[in-house]
Amino acid sequence: MTDSAPPLDFYFDFSSPYGYLMSEKIDAVAARYNRKVRWHPILLGIIFKATGSAPLTLQNPAKAAYSIHDFERSARFMGIPYRHPSRFPLATQNAARAYYWLHGQDCALARRFAHAVYRAFFVDDLDISSPDTVLDIATRLGIDREQLAAALQAPEVKARLKDECEQALAAGVFGSPHLIVDGEHFFGADRLPQIEHWLQTGGF
Amino acid sequence: MTDSAPPLDFYFDFSSPYGYLMSEKIDAVAARYNRKVRWHPILLGIIFKATGSAPLTLQNPAKAAYSIHDFERSARFMGIPYRHPSRFPLATQNAARAYYWLHGQDCALARRFAHAVYRAFFVDDLDISSPDTVLDIATRLGIDREQLAAALQAPEVKARLKDECEQALAAGVFGSPHLIVDGEHFFGADRLPQIEHWLQTGGF
Repeated sequence: MTDSAPPLDFYFDFSSPYGYLMSEKIDAVAARYNRKVRWHPILLGIIFKATGSAPLTLQNPAKAAYSIHDFERSARFMGIPYRHPSRFPLATQNAARAYYWLHGQDCALARRFAHAVYRAFFVDDLDISSPDTVLDIATRLGIDREQLAAALQAPEVKARLKDECEQALAAGVFGSPHLIVDGEHFFGADRLPQIEHWLQTGGF
Repeated sequence: MTDSAPPLDFYFDFSSPYGYLMSEKIDAVAARYNRKVRWHPILLGIIFKATGSAPLTLQNPAKAAYSIHDFERSARFMGIPYRHPSRFPLATQNAARAYYWLHGQDCALARRFAHAVYRAFFVDDLDISSPDTVLDIATRLGIDREQLAAALQAPEVKARLKDECEQALAAGVFGSPHLIVDGEHFFGADRLPQIEHWLQTGGF
């Protein structure tokens, strides 16, 4: 693959543990093969409503308990800090809207913001559903608080997130993390070795 | 770990693609750490009814289509032959009953039979729900057809399978493949690297 190869598409919800694990690894894996990654925060609430699914921790008690244990163990296995949030899952439309507004101005800053939101939730146990928490995270990155607060209420920003969710559904996305690499779909942080093999070999 | 370390418990349904992938690898992985594996065929129909779950391919269309693609791709990634069965999923009580009856007489033969059933389904596309197919597979391994045919109808053999399913539920099993290693649960063929790391390090 050359520098002109198209980016990978990375769909995730800011409340998704395996999405967080993927977010800590995918850019570096792609970069080893001269590939970039386009990040798409989406709302699993919309995806699950359309597809008739449910969060892992709201499924049967055995699977829910296992899932929380597996989030923590998978993080240790991948060398990523993780503390299961005390409020989980939660609504992430404020974080996602902030991401798209920032992305329109500064892609690199939007990427740093996305990492900061995920770490605030999965390391520092902050309530990222709250607009104030989202604004605090942004302010620490030098982003103008008032401008962002206004953007969170702007119809065009709300419409952008809705549109991204609809486009994700149309592309066949059914969960988080969901990667599309040259038309090939990979669901779950545990598909990272297959993604790397795919990038390395051009398909297998 | 020494030779006296307890065996790993491997729960699976003969109709489970990821169970098949695990079945082709787990004994060799365990053997590298001087561990043995106790195989437990179970019926996902009973497990899913108790836990309120459903087969991957009977979930939403996007996830169902992805799952079949992922079965095939994961098999290629793991170097295992795989052809998605034309009848899927199907009932596996005859195969599972045959396994437990054989296991009572010859553990090693029961293991060979289990491999043969999985490969008949996931490589040769045979209808392993049929008692005749199960008897054909057994006969090719030198097992007495008449005795096994009688065993498939024996109340004590039926009770053994029912009991194994209930014990699996009591142990917290919610799907296939499901491994328990020294009390630690691992769900899915994609957890094999974590299982190996666990065996190697004694926990992480």
